[in-house]
Amino acid sequence: MRYLLTVAYDGRAYHGYQVQKGQITVQKTLQDAVEAIFGDRYPLVGCSRTDSGVHARDFKALLTVGEGAPRIPAEQLPRALNTHLPEDLSVRAAEPAAEGFHPRYDVRRKEYEYLILNAKVRDPFLAGRAYLYPIPLDEERMNRAAARFVGTHDFSAFTAAGSDVADRVRTVFDCRVTREGELVSVRVAGNGFLYNMVRIMVGTLIEVSAGRLAPEAIDDVIASRERSRAGFTAPACGLYLDRVLY
Amino acid sequence: MRYLLTVAYDGRAYHGYQVQKGQITVQKTLQDAVEAIFGDRYPLVGCSRTDSGVHARDFKALLTVGEGAPRIPAEQLPRALNTHLPEDLSVRAAEPAAEGFHPRYDVRRKEYEYLILNAKVRDPFLAGRAYLYPIPLDEERMNRAAARFVGTHDFSAFTAAGSDVADRVRTVFDCRVTREGELVSVRVAGNGFLYNMVRIMVGTLIEVSAGRLAPEAIDDVIASRERSRAGFTAPACGLYLDRVLY
Repeated sequence: MRYLLTVAYDGRAYHGYQVQKGQITVQKTLQDAVEAIFGDRYPLVGCSRTDSGVHARDFKALLTVGEGAPRIPAEQLPRALNTHLPEDLSVRAAEPAAEGFHPRYDVRRKEYEYLILNAKVRDPFLAGRAYLYPIPLDEERMNRAAARFVGTHDFSAFTAAGSDVADRVRTVFDCRVTREGELVSVRVAGNGFLYNMVRIMVGTLIEVSAGRLAPEAIDDVIASRERSRAGFTAPACGLYLDRVLY
Repeated sequence: MRYLLTVAYDGRAYHGYQVQKGQITVQKTLQDAVEAIFGDRYPLVGCSRTDSGVHARDFKALLTVGEGAPRIPAEQLPRALNTHLPEDLSVRAAEPAAEGFHPRYDVRRKEYEYLILNAKVRDPFLAGRAYLYPIPLDEERMNRAAARFVGTHDFSAFTAAGSDVADRVRTVFDCRVTREGELVSVRVAGNGFLYNMVRIMVGTLIEVSAGRLAPEAIDDVIASRERSRAGFTAPACGLYLDRVLY
């Protein structure tokens, strides 16, 4: 039996999704709950490897349980698993997954949101859930730069130096910046993202706002494929995996 | 020097506002920070005594520091205090307070919001920050009941039994229920509130939605002044002190 799980988590307490020896990760925590219900550890494949401290509203994971496991209808799985999960991690939905479906390779569109609390004073309700940036951001200027990301590009300039992924061409479908009061939101949608790509895009947009880069210069930064030409890596706490479409 | 502080806090870790022996409270945590900066413990008077687990977005507290204390301009106080405060508690603003001003007696209007996550499955981003209620709520019906609270009434039926407050007459200026997806919000504004009053009002509205009470029956419940006629006390985790006006 194969289940596609929709998982939401506050990433603060987790060392990312993927199992790492001696660390609390989302995958390990989920597998413990799976074991509590199905009596065994079964493979769980995630739609991406989110970093330490990154959040997810709509993370997808494929759970494959063995023939001998108890037969649990998909619609009962979220509540069954949630009784064994901490309150910062919740299985929001489950559905049967088709044979041959792959939660990472079959992604058509992924959407991230990055939250910036653009204020001088921190907000207790956004601790660890938004990046506190005190200098006023010019979201109109950021938006002009954001539009330049849209399209199919080699995004080598926007990934951690030393990344060993061979194909660094990705398509960004949309990228826009909005503000609601002190909260600035950067939304990015694409067919896939390199390691740290969204966080470097956000750091670059902040540097555009600060005047270190012109909005039009994004084209040159992309073309250079040099990490050093892009902006800083915005901290993990502001990043949310928001939606995954197959 | 007298400062009016605007304080926000996630109430989960606190046994309410008021100092209680051996408990972590908002007042005690603030006074520790005041002592770290001014070198002494100075009186801090809050605008109300929020319960254990209740949150505040706009709590007001009056800080009176002695003649001998360091002179710190009001606009520098939030950042100075925040360096000594945990991340779930933040001083958002500070201003000089006039002689004779009282943060509780001088309140003209107080606004609360109560958040209900009306869903079968919990949301990790709302853990301890909204009341999870799984049965679909009828917010139109709740709204018809909510309108009945508006006005000047003896709210004895809507306070914890055994409360020893003599005058139980309060004026509710507004009470309305709105929904955004799975999140149902109850907003109440008034000139003051009895102990547990908002939480009992919310519990009563939920019972109206469930059909245990007709919306029009609110009038009779108020008139009865009997606690047993009103609904249950909704849990603290959903309640936010949202705004205080002088």
